[in-house]
Amino acid sequence: MCVDLFPICRSITGNGVRQTLSYIKDLLPDLQLHEVPSGTKAFDWTVPKEWNVKDAYIIDPDGDKVVDFQKNNLHLVGYSVPVRKTISLEELQEHLYSLPEQSSAVPYVTSYYSPRWGFCITHERRKNLKPGNYHVFIDSTLTDGSLTYGELILPGLSDKEILLSTYICHPSMANNELSGPAVTTYLAKWLTGLDKRIFTYRIIFSPETIGSIVYLSKNLQKMKNNIIAGFNITCVGDNDDYSYLPSRYGNTLADRIALHVLTHTHPDYKRYSFLDRGGDERQYCSPGVDLPVVSVMRTKYGQYPEYHTSLDDLNFISPEGLLGGYYVLKKCLECLETNNTLINTVTCEPQLGQRGLYKTLSMKRDQKNSKDVLNLLAYCDGSNDLIAVADIINRPLWELMPLIEALMKNNLLKALRKNQ
Amino acid sequence: MCVDLFPICRSITGNGVRQTLSYIKDLLPDLQLHEVPSGTKAFDWTVPKEWNVKDAYIIDPDGDKVVDFQKNNLHLVGYSVPVRKTISLEELQEHLYSLPEQSSAVPYVTSYYSPRWGFCITHERRKNLKPGNYHVFIDSTLTDGSLTYGELILPGLSDKEILLSTYICHPSMANNELSGPAVTTYLAKWLTGLDKRIFTYRIIFSPETIGSIVYLSKNLQKMKNNIIAGFNITCVGDNDDYSYLPSRYGNTLADRIALHVLTHTHPDYKRYSFLDRGGDERQYCSPGVDLPVVSVMRTKYGQYPEYHTSLDDLNFISPEGLLGGYYVLKKCLECLETNNTLINTVTCEPQLGQRGLYKTLSMKRDQKNSKDVLNLLAYCDGSNDLIAVADIINRPLWELMPLIEALMKNNLLKALRKNQ
Amino acid sequence: MCVDLFPICRSITGNGVRQTLSYIKDLLPDLQLHEVPSGTKAFDWTVPKEWNVKDAYIIDPDGDKVVDFQKNNLHLVGYSVPVRKTISLEELQEHLYSLPEQSSAVPYVTSYYSPRWGFCITHERRKNLKPGNYHVFIDSTLTDGSLTYGELILPGLSDKEILLSTYICHPSMANNELSGPAVTTYLAKWLTGLDKRIFTYRIIFSPETIGSIVYLSKNLQKMKNNIIAGFNITCVGDNDDYSYLPSRYGNTLADRIALHVLTHTHPDYKRYSFLDRGGDERQYCSPGVDLPVVSVMRTKYGQYPEYHTSLDDLNFISPEGLLGGYYVLKKCLECLETNNTLINTVTCEPQLGQRGLYKTLSMKRDQKNSKDVLNLLAYCDGSNDLIAVADIINRPLWELMPLIEALMKNNLLKALRKNQ
Repeated sequence: MCVDLFPICRSITGNGVRQTLSYIKDLLPDLQLHEVPSGTKAFDWTVPKEWNVKDAYIIDPDGDKVVDFQKNNLHLVGYSVPVRKTISLEELQEHLYSLPEQSSAVPYVTSYYSPRWGFCITHERRKNLKPGNYHVFIDSTLTDGSLTYGELILPGLSDKEILLSTYICHPSMANNELSGPAVTTYLAKWLTGLDKRIFTYRIIFSPETIGSIVYLSKNLQKMKNNIIAGFNITCVGDNDDYSYLPSRYGNTLADRIALHVLTHTHPDYKRYSFLDRGGDERQYCSPGVDLPVVSVMRTKYGQYPEYHTSLDDLNFISPEGLLGGYYVLKKCLECLETNNTLINTVTCEPQLGQRGLYKTLSMKRDQKNSKDVLNLLAYCDGSNDLIAVADIINRPLWELMPLIEALMKNNLLKALRKNQ
Repeated sequence: MCVDLFPICRSITGNGVRQTLSYIKDLLPDLQLHEVPSGTKAFDWTVPKEWNVKDAYIIDPDGDKVVDFQKNNLHLVGYSVPVRKTISLEELQEHLYSLPEQSSAVPYVTSYYSPRWGFCITHERRKNLKPGNYHVFIDSTLTDGSLTYGELILPGLSDKEILLSTYICHPSMANNELSGPAVTTYLAKWLTGLDKRIFTYRIIFSPETIGSIVYLSKNLQKMKNNIIAGFNITCVGDNDDYSYLPSRYGNTLADRIALHVLTHTHPDYKRYSFLDRGGDERQYCSPGVDLPVVSVMRTKYGQYPEYHTSLDDLNFISPEGLLGGYYVLKKCLECLETNNTLINTVTCEPQLGQRGLYKTLSMKRDQKNSKDVLNLLAYCDGSNDLIAVADIINRPLWELMPLIEALMKNNLLKALRKNQ
Repeated sequence: MCVDLFPICRSITGNGVRQTLSYIKDLLPDLQLHEVPSGTKAFDWTVPKEWNVKDAYIIDPDGDKVVDFQKNNLHLVGYSVPVRKTISLEELQEHLYSLPEQSSAVPYVTSYYSPRWGFCITHERRKNLKPGNYHVFIDSTLTDGSLTYGELILPGLSDKEILLSTYICHPSMANNELSGPAVTTYLAKWLTGLDKRIFTYRIIFSPETIGSIVYLSKNLQKMKNNIIAGFNITCVGDNDDYSYLPSRYGNTLADRIALHVLTHTHPDYKRYSFLDRGGDERQYCSPGVDLPVVSVMRTKYGQYPEYHTSLDDLNFISPEGLLGGYYVLKKCLECLETNNTLINTVTCEPQLGQRGLYKTLSMKRDQKNSKDVLNLLAYCDGSNDLIAVADIINRPLWELMPLIEALMKNNLLKALRKNQ
């Protein structure tokens, strides 16, 4: 999937986005594609004109094509206006972007809301440009069109929703951001195949910032009423860190779930602050929106040198990296589906031995056997949900679940929420 | 007292318990003994049949008595059913319990709720058993009878109660558990002799688990209404640690008192988690019971190698060890009796000098003299009880009491609770 | 100012206090001087008789004036009763005060509320006193008079008040206490000159303890209703530490402001406990008064060896030291004037680019530019005041103010309090 989608020229609008969503719809047939016309108001924002590119290049004084959009779509500054002219190297320099400290990387540059044109090249190449006249050609269109996003609603037993949101606006870069759409697609396929879902899943594939703002402007009230936890899915494909970026105050169910899963699966995960944010949690967690959304990532955007350059390519991600991102998010969703508030049904400890839940022979070495059972019975007192109980006991919820199910089957614990 | 009681064969029921309680009643004449018939329901539990043993031994192929209940009652698995037969060594092995890692210790094993028989021996002895036929003999009875516990209520000025609870179900072991009944007995004697008790004391000598469950089933509502703090008294006889095990959420008056006393008397005490629990706090702190009960111990059960073996004998405890346990618990009770919420009677600082509470000559070196007085006046603002004030000031309550009494006598502080 | 005021013999009453306040009134013409007659009741206290001294000395057996009040008014114990007699060295010794561990220092000693007389001398001098008869002479008066304090009210747009309080009762000592009146005077001059004050300022120059108690007894209800933050200004003239001493529970606006300013201006400041208090915060923060008052100091009283001796002289303080104390308190007042609760006016992030508040070109290296703007918009959600927002963002409020003003001008933030 990443290999197929990598070469497509995506931006916040345009045919590259449609082509990408169409590819995903082949994998998730229930995905709904929405088109929002240019000029549509969304809170403080307006949907911009649609941008499409046929070709773009620079020809040097020797007649060589020194920069070619066809070879790498990062070469063109995103949302560049059309241009066709011959200019001096000095004038050209004002439209070139490169990274002196990463001289072999093509940077990723955009100018969505201010009309500009420009090219991104490696600093090595830039230093070798000869004096003389250059022909620059950008065959782009900026016209009234629409912004495209994909939405997949997977109904569950409850109206309460879990949000998954990812970006489809980045051109040829892999971790940020093909890993997000890829992992989200496979999470959606897994969710689709479940026999039973407690919660309804709202899964969004949209361009960053303007996409989530447009989406929120159309769905805010319903989302505020229903969403109990959400995940912004980005940078989930490399082999390095696992990372957590909290919601605005770090105190939501999504935060507790993410911390519980990462603590037990990857205890050396990196914990960021909301001050380190940079993705759509900026919108989902903004005042007045206040959704319980966190980011669970591999190496966080901005924390690896390849970020937002041509070096964030298919070699930077790996099947193992993506699978790691997938598993940790799947574990979060499983914990959410499992979570409930249980309450003890008997006063004092129940007699576990007669129910086969406890060794009947008491001997020094066996004392620790049934600690989990007794701890579950002690802290399932109606004041803690299962994640809180598991946190108190310091055990992963998934390892406690067989015991919890046995205790429920024996009517020693009962659920306060009934729809399971 | 420990020497006298050590040899008695105690269990959760039977004549050993009665004999033990009768001995304690000689020391505490107001102790009430209660008998609860076998078959009585108590929450999820049923009082088991009563178990008594006349004799038990194993005779080896040479005719030697290799294991003899008369020599050490730990040799017999608690609640062993009667048996009289000759069996091979192989078959016998299935009924033997020993500790390979502590080869000179006889383990303590019970099987209260599942009919079994068995013998506990040292691993050294077990390895030297010869092949051949063994005669096993257990002259025990398991009949309808009753569970016996002792209860002593010492009335105070207030109906509010302090709970002391300890175990009388352990056979020949010293720290766990003759230290608990011994220290509790002497605390009760001290309380009995007091001129005035603010609180009513509810003191329970009962078999572990089933005893406290039975007791709670008969007294729960009254206990929930009245008990303001309680102590589970166990493992208070050795010379090593001082230990604290909190209530379920660690936030009760009993927790605050125990921490205050241990912090100032034994600052190197060990602080356990409720997850480390193993005694009757399991019942007292269970959901629906929710009593404010903690354990203040010397070395905690399970934390010393001699625990639940024949090595926990009279050599493991000492008069100094028991006295240390007694003093720290006595200090807790004294702090409870002393505790009150006081409130300042004057706005701004009172003029202490004219009342003889402050040096009248102010000079650099004297500045620290009256810090405690001023701190008491500052934090006795009606929002903190005296334990909280002493914690803020970081001073032991007992060292502040003479000042507090002087301030009350001068009408600078008055008590919100009047019954003192 | 310190040079002029240093030689005056101040005490809690008397002409030295009037002379000092009159000097300050020359600098602050609106300062109101109040006289409270001896015998006036103030809560638990009574205004004492007024004390004035014409002369005092000791003449040794050789006829030499070995101690002379005219040379240093610290030589006389504060509130000494008149005396004129010849006594032996032995009897004299009972009336002498010196510091063996600081043999060249004259200690500062007072006996306000217990009739005494005495002299303070260096320990060096004391050791060299010859046997024989000494003539002691104290020409003091203790008569019905009055206690004098100065009060300056600077009205602001709001009735809500900020309290500044300092001491004018210390004789010839510099850091404790001419630095307090000096810095307070210059803060008052700065406040007087402001175009606009949000808050009303209540500025008190009074004798320590009895002065603040008398003042509170006359103004308590109004102060409790209006004061939102206050500063006890003392020991603000040396070159060493910056120090913070909290209010009784350390949780007031004054505490938050002081911590914010010191954290960003002098991160190595010393943080004391309310248990370390020793000035008029004892009255302002007492139960029933409960004003939000903290002390922001240079080196705290009692923490430097020169404290309360003749060594705390004009060499111990410096213009730089006083200026440092002035600036940090001024910063606190500026933060209070600036502080407000702001709320975001748009849902989701506003489009900052079109308002010139954000770079319109997105490139890797520019990502951090507008963090402050986005963080302000995220945490100005109506639940935090600006100090709290700045604390969350971990940035000094004064550096954020230009951005905050730009955001308000652009109607992206609006104030919940309107009087600015």
